[in-house]
Amino acid sequence: MAKKDTKGITVKKSDNFSEWYTQVIQKADLADYTSVSGCIAYKPGSYEIWEKIKNVTDVKFKQIGIKNCYFPIFIPESLLQKEADHIEHFSPEVAWVTHAGDTKLGERLAIRPTSETIMYESYSKWIRSHNDLPLRLNQWNNVVRWEFKHATPFLRSREFLWNEGHTCFATQKEAEAEQKDILAIYDTVCRDLLALPSLIGRKSEKEKFAGALYTDSLEFVMPNGKAIQGPDFHHDGQNFAKVFDITFTDKNGKKEYVWQNTFAITTRMIGVLIGIHGDDKGLVLPPSLASTQVVIVPILFDDSRAKVLKEVENVKKKLEKKGFSVYVDDREGYSPGWKFNEWEVKGIPLRIEIGPKDVANKKVMVARRDTGEKKAVSTSTVEKEVDTLLQNMQKSMLQKAETILKTSIVEVKTMKEAEKQIQNKKIVFAPWCSTKECEEQFKDKTGAKSLNSPFKQPSISGKCFACKEKATTWFYFGKSY
Amino acid sequence: MAKKDTKGITVKKSDNFSEWYTQVIQKADLADYTSVSGCIAYKPGSYEIWEKIKNVTDVKFKQIGIKNCYFPIFIPESLLQKEADHIEHFSPEVAWVTHAGDTKLGERLAIRPTSETIMYESYSKWIRSHNDLPLRLNQWNNVVRWEFKHATPFLRSREFLWNEGHTCFATQKEAEAEQKDILAIYDTVCRDLLALPSLIGRKSEKEKFAGALYTDSLEFVMPNGKAIQGPDFHHDGQNFAKVFDITFTDKNGKKEYVWQNTFAITTRMIGVLIGIHGDDKGLVLPPSLASTQVVIVPILFDDSRAKVLKEVENVKKKLEKKGFSVYVDDREGYSPGWKFNEWEVKGIPLRIEIGPKDVANKKVMVARRDTGEKKAVSTSTVEKEVDTLLQNMQKSMLQKAETILKTSIVEVKTMKEAEKQIQNKKIVFAPWCSTKECEEQFKDKTGAKSLNSPFKQPSISGKCFACKEKATTWFYFGKSY
Repeated sequence: MAKKDTKGITVKKSDNFSEWYTQVIQKADLADYTSVSGCIAYKPGSYEIWEKIKNVTDVKFKQIGIKNCYFPIFIPESLLQKEADHIEHFSPEVAWVTHAGDTKLGERLAIRPTSETIMYESYSKWIRSHNDLPLRLNQWNNVVRWEFKHATPFLRSREFLWNEGHTCFATQKEAEAEQKDILAIYDTVCRDLLALPSLIGRKSEKEKFAGALYTDSLEFVMPNGKAIQGPDFHHDGQNFAKVFDITFTDKNGKKEYVWQNTFAITTRMIGVLIGIHGDDKGLVLPPSLASTQVVIVPILFDDSRAKVLKEVENVKKKLEKKGFSVYVDDREGYSPGWKFNEWEVKGIPLRIEIGPKDVANKKVMVARRDTGEKKAVSTSTVEKEVDTLLQNMQKSMLQKAETILKTSIVEVKTMKEAEKQIQNKKIVFAPWCSTKECEEQFKDKTGAKSLNSPFKQPSISGKCFACKEKATTWFYFGKSY
Repeated sequence: MAKKDTKGITVKKSDNFSEWYTQVIQKADLADYTSVSGCIAYKPGSYEIWEKIKNVTDVKFKQIGIKNCYFPIFIPESLLQKEADHIEHFSPEVAWVTHAGDTKLGERLAIRPTSETIMYESYSKWIRSHNDLPLRLNQWNNVVRWEFKHATPFLRSREFLWNEGHTCFATQKEAEAEQKDILAIYDTVCRDLLALPSLIGRKSEKEKFAGALYTDSLEFVMPNGKAIQGPDFHHDGQNFAKVFDITFTDKNGKKEYVWQNTFAITTRMIGVLIGIHGDDKGLVLPPSLASTQVVIVPILFDDSRAKVLKEVENVKKKLEKKGFSVYVDDREGYSPGWKFNEWEVKGIPLRIEIGPKDVANKKVMVARRDTGEKKAVSTSTVEKEVDTLLQNMQKSMLQKAETILKTSIVEVKTMKEAEKQIQNKKIVFAPWCSTKECEEQFKDKTGAKSLNSPFKQPSISGKCFACKEKATTWFYFGKSY
């Protein structure tokens, strides 16, 4: 009857996460591979998740005074090379344009891996006086990092979509004050929209962004025990300002360098969402994120067809009036069971079934995607029940994810414990002396990297888990994407 | 006092359109040149125009069932070459990526000049049965066409932003039925949002899109007498379907090729808007488009400062309550006149001045950007007056543009008349035999190209303006960008 292979996911998430992830992406119709190695086609199912992330974030950026702009995708080689750490970090992954038509270009052009260099060249022209500050611009665009590691749809892709915020302030104090706002926006988008809690804190010197004074990040933990870095915020100090000569005349007529920040959220979050919330039946979408929150499947028989469809229309209208997005699946030639399966794989939060008996009893059957719970609901109060169910589902998805995150972390005090827990696929939380030596030693032994250090620190009095010298900070370590 | 060169535009639009256009872009803070030749930086002032065009169009696309997706920016050379007309047209302008980091790629990758080839390779995998149709996808993205002609910000840029709709249908009838919807959406966006009327019709065989059966376009006429092609719609028939093997099994089990359309609106419209609506004082924004519709400039003296600012806040709240976007320019260190000039250059539809006398008289002074008219308005009814003024301004900008468009067109019957009118910088409307020979002969003589042929044709009985054979259609010709 059905033309596609719409059998459910054939592997358990806990048995083979990687194969499960690939199947969800394909069977939930989220994305497909293309003939460009490491680049995927985003189908509407995944692109609308990105649109939602983008739109919600964008409104919040605008509320705090950040404006959107657009810079060229190309960066002349000489410009990209201006900042030493920056070019050292990005050059191995830069895609280079060398020809236009049959003409060889005088200078190679990088496809932007990030836009600091092209933007700051303009900033240096645009900023003259303290009246031009703060300058708080953002781009929503595509960037290319031609990684040679194994590509994974959404999580590690040679082209990805993101926001890149690039702001300039007159003083370091003002620049650093932006950090709280930006991290709060990203955290709200992740928690309230995607139902994804994270570890928020400061990266190590080794893992910070190339060119920044420090980097703060939201780290997520995938079901395979691997951490993955989500949105981040970098305080660049005056580093780029000095390289690109971004100066302003202050109120006293003195020439000063600006203080800068950059920050980003990427399409990687789609992959984090799939990985953390998906289950053995497929994708699970948090109600706030889902572009279709309720699917109604009519159970149709020849003799009651009209009556059932009329009731379906009635329920649909009641729900839409309350602002819920509803899709009626009245396709012919597909059994109700086949349809149930399709919407489960695609992660639609609620399914409503309406058959002739339901019409007679003035009830509908509602099934919740995350728990699988089904219950009969009176048609007269269906909009209230749906509202409650969607709210509960949103909360419970976040709570569940919080519990999983907590249980994925183990506090350790010694290298031996740390090694053991990394082998157990845990994230370890350890007192650390903050030296690169211990960080690298641990990485060599276990493959785990430092993640970040929470802003609210437990009191620290002990010794570094690795070298036994004085610990200066509690830090998360883990294997990561 | 002011740190920037905010003197007004120093050249008249009618004296030197090109220099005027460049000055408006710079002085209205819309865009800037970059070190990538032919590519500009979109500042917030122009990017927010694009965001509005994009958002309004996107809502309308979604209403008729079109969904967004995202495909890679890269197209392998072998894939781009699959359709002969397509590669012939685009290859001279393709930017080629040859290296990633230090590694030479096995196959060159084109930066997409348009995405037919990469999308249709996937479509061929995704479409199997009539149940998969129609497939109506759209992308909002960046494309690169490395033209060697003189670049002009917005109007001709090596990288530009656009939508590219790519739809597939089971029958030609269904595919062609989409044309009306798409043209209506683009026309509404241009007329109602941008206040820009256009010549809507079918392009000639010579000027149609490479690979299409036919192309329909919205053509605009710039103040220098040059036409410029705006949004367009292409019916591709089964041309690409045959090249990329996009087939489906119909209800009778028979394998058929799909019928396809593509359509686009680009950031070029920002340039058309500037050119047609701008005046000797700078940019003029239609109220529906303007992200700030009203700027309030308080006239401040030490002894009445608090009173005036209180009234400003009162008026602002009244206007915002009615849904208008309002900005209060209470910056210190700038004179009212300096501020008036800044907002005039930037094209803000209405300016409200409030000084101590106005507060005493319970009035405010309102100035309309397009006509320069100023009038005193009672504070108690300011929101109604503003509403009326903004509505009138939107209407009157469209009417004015319609009049200009009409007067830019001259009906001609002979080659001699046509040549003369092209010299007069007019668009000519002529009966034409539809042959490429006459089209090329006219282009050789005058430099003018065929634009399009309106769907509603005047009756035709005469002879071709060029060859005197039987005319088959009335057609617009003109010099163009």
